[in-house]
Amino acid sequence: MSLTMVERLLEERKSDYLQQLFALLKQKSISTTNEGVRECAELLLEMMQSCGIQSRLMETAGHPVVYGEWLKAENTFTVLIYGHYDVQPPDPVEEWQSPPFEPTIREGRIYCRGVGDNKGQLMAQVLAIKTYLDSFGELPVNVKLLFEGEEENSSPHLAAFVAEHKELLACDLVYTSDGPMHGSGIPSVELGVRGILGVEMIAYGAKWDHHSGNMGNIAPNPAWMLIDLLRTMRDEHGRVLIEGFYDNIRKPTAYELDLFRKLPFDRNELIEQIGYPDIEEDSETYYRQVSLEPTFNICGFHSGYGGDGSKTIIPAKASVKMDIRLVIDQDPDDIFQKLCSHVRKYAPSINVLHQGDMRPSRTSAELEIVKVVVEGVGNAYGIDPLLVPGVGGSLPDYVWTQILGVPSVMVPYANADEANHAPNENMVVELFYKGISCTCHVLHQLGEFSKKKNDL
Amino acid sequence: MSLTMVERLLEERKSDYLQQLFALLKQKSISTTNEGVRECAELLLEMMQSCGIQSRLMETAGHPVVYGEWLKAENTFTVLIYGHYDVQPPDPVEEWQSPPFEPTIREGRIYCRGVGDNKGQLMAQVLAIKTYLDSFGELPVNVKLLFEGEEENSSPHLAAFVAEHKELLACDLVYTSDGPMHGSGIPSVELGVRGILGVEMIAYGAKWDHHSGNMGNIAPNPAWMLIDLLRTMRDEHGRVLIEGFYDNIRKPTAYELDLFRKLPFDRNELIEQIGYPDIEEDSETYYRQVSLEPTFNICGFHSGYGGDGSKTIIPAKASVKMDIRLVIDQDPDDIFQKLCSHVRKYAPSINVLHQGDMRPSRTSAELEIVKVVVEGVGNAYGIDPLLVPGVGGSLPDYVWTQILGVPSVMVPYANADEANHAPNENMVVELFYKGISCTCHVLHQLGEFSKKKNDL
Repeated sequence: MSLTMVERLLEERKSDYLQQLFALLKQKSISTTNEGVRECAELLLEMMQSCGIQSRLMETAGHPVVYGEWLKAENTFTVLIYGHYDVQPPDPVEEWQSPPFEPTIREGRIYCRGVGDNKGQLMAQVLAIKTYLDSFGELPVNVKLLFEGEEENSSPHLAAFVAEHKELLACDLVYTSDGPMHGSGIPSVELGVRGILGVEMIAYGAKWDHHSGNMGNIAPNPAWMLIDLLRTMRDEHGRVLIEGFYDNIRKPTAYELDLFRKLPFDRNELIEQIGYPDIEEDSETYYRQVSLEPTFNICGFHSGYGGDGSKTIIPAKASVKMDIRLVIDQDPDDIFQKLCSHVRKYAPSINVLHQGDMRPSRTSAELEIVKVVVEGVGNAYGIDPLLVPGVGGSLPDYVWTQILGVPSVMVPYANADEANHAPNENMVVELFYKGISCTCHVLHQLGEFSKKKNDL
Repeated sequence: MSLTMVERLLEERKSDYLQQLFALLKQKSISTTNEGVRECAELLLEMMQSCGIQSRLMETAGHPVVYGEWLKAENTFTVLIYGHYDVQPPDPVEEWQSPPFEPTIREGRIYCRGVGDNKGQLMAQVLAIKTYLDSFGELPVNVKLLFEGEEENSSPHLAAFVAEHKELLACDLVYTSDGPMHGSGIPSVELGVRGILGVEMIAYGAKWDHHSGNMGNIAPNPAWMLIDLLRTMRDEHGRVLIEGFYDNIRKPTAYELDLFRKLPFDRNELIEQIGYPDIEEDSETYYRQVSLEPTFNICGFHSGYGGDGSKTIIPAKASVKMDIRLVIDQDPDDIFQKLCSHVRKYAPSINVLHQGDMRPSRTSAELEIVKVVVEGVGNAYGIDPLLVPGVGGSLPDYVWTQILGVPSVMVPYANADEANHAPNENMVVELFYKGISCTCHVLHQLGEFSKKKNDL
């Protein structure tokens, strides 16, 4: 069965599909501040139902899951498609060239908060199912869809949800489209993510701000307290000094290292993409640092006056927010305990808050099902995709590999410079359509694989 | 000549004088953000004129000076009264119990931004002149008044103004009421201030914020750059590591040290006043640290996300604002150069901005004119005032001692817990009236002193 029909239908419906995406984009769904999240879930539910997917909202202890399924395939193979409908806050809003929640097309790109991360990729999957169903009246394999509303807040309730609904979610493969494509523009099939531990550390000085002259050298300065603590946690080369932080890091296999070395790398392109000239990494260091090594990132540090001019105070409070990316087999609980012990030792008066975490994941690159997906993606884009053992970002991929116990592959549909989490987030319009096509091709290839297995 | 008449008139006019102060308080005059500053100058000008002071606005390169004079005294002695009509920004506004620019009386205190620092003290002086003139038809000495509008922004144009108008401003003594009274509630005569150097250091990473997963370990983090720099500038005990920072610090005289030791000190009261339990200073350490030792204060550190929840980014920018209090004879220009050299050596990519500075000052405690002021203040409050060789805050006092070359005394009228520069700034109502009375008594005593000198 060829996919010419699917491609023709997609071509005809481009403008209609774009309108559907825009409708979802306009609906805010900022999970960290709880703006419009449920409204967005309800809108997505309607859209999925109108695409022929039997769908429902399922409650969690936080924002709802939108679950859908189509289970009438002739074979028993089931793929579960995962994505998220929540988005990051749009700050700093003043740096957006068009309002963050008004989708705007400029030079072939859609600019909007959440377009790449993850609404554009999510809608590509939903619309692929519609296109496939409208082309053939059926899908080549059984499909389940699970879209959560808390991914940008570290998916605090997904693991419990999956554990609770293991039977409902039972499948042979999990398929996720999220994150940016490789910088080379070549599609990729990714097999693991870094985990994450989010913490906030708050230092309190006096009960209120003080005049820095009248109380200077007397009232304590919490910004200095935090800096003094942070300097005990990390040396100036970036090495983390918390005891045991690097324990349990699993060495990559020879095959994985080989795959890493085969990945394209263009330093000038990377420099352009990052917007920073002093990038000294070569291919191997780059991939090793970005996917096999943990980070110790400050994502926010705030204390005292930040407006124009100056305000001569001793601040009463200082806060640092950190997101620490973890690699397999670091355990967020273990790392959090080690961090707390460190703080107790060096600055016991500083409060440590746990903001969320996610375990790292890895699927073996040597599985047959991985090769099937690679083939489907290759057919869609007309080029062999890159096979990537691990990427730098964090997704709750471990809930599939560890809780459901199935392989999990990630095939990002958004451009490498999508600026996810940043101002002027965008997605190339053609890549949105290509994503729809890709999901169709992967479903098709999975169908062929299942037929062959049934035949044996 | 007794001052019974003055005291009676003041008693009668209390409510009227309070209304005049309220009118000035309601007029915003935030110099750092330029809100309402000129409007406030014009309002103050009118008020001074209506008090019988020949007044005018005088332009500077920044906000205008309000200058006034009464020069019809029988003797040649001239006192110049200095103050400022600008105020600090009201942030954090949400911590105010009543709106920051609506003067509100609660439990005998006026709550309003600028009431203690410096409008209440400034109006006490203006209204003292009115009260004295209305009582006796003349003042006992010549009086000049100079109220500037940039003190909260480090008085960037005052020195040039004074240098340019030396003849106009010629006088025998400068008298300033600013800052809080001593914690004991005993009035004081203060003879010197710390200087200040305000700097902002900005680190730039990539051109825009990055996703901390996709670019973690690759895109540089400017918050860490700043922290790495700051850790080279100051050790964990607070000692500044910038080369030569402590050079040129003048040792106090034996008489000054003796005066320090005589000052009252109540640790529990200080703990209450600061709102922090771990204050270990004894009397001598406290006064030494707060007035004879420089500070290295962070008044603001801002980078990345500071809202609720988390936002997993590598920030593109980090900024630290510092105010460094200097003691005599540290020179702000010299310290700034040393700081810049340090940054060039350890983190040359970090930008250093000069935000303003002010030299420290000191007037000899052994001058006869100081004793005259002490006597006047003592008469007003009915208690011997403390004689304080130096205080922790910064005022442009050096323009009098160094540019005009005259002695300068500071007699604060606001309560010790005025919360200047902080939310819920306040001034005890009775201390406002006491300030009016005090200025009258000091003028009177200066008149007696001049007569005696003329007689000799």
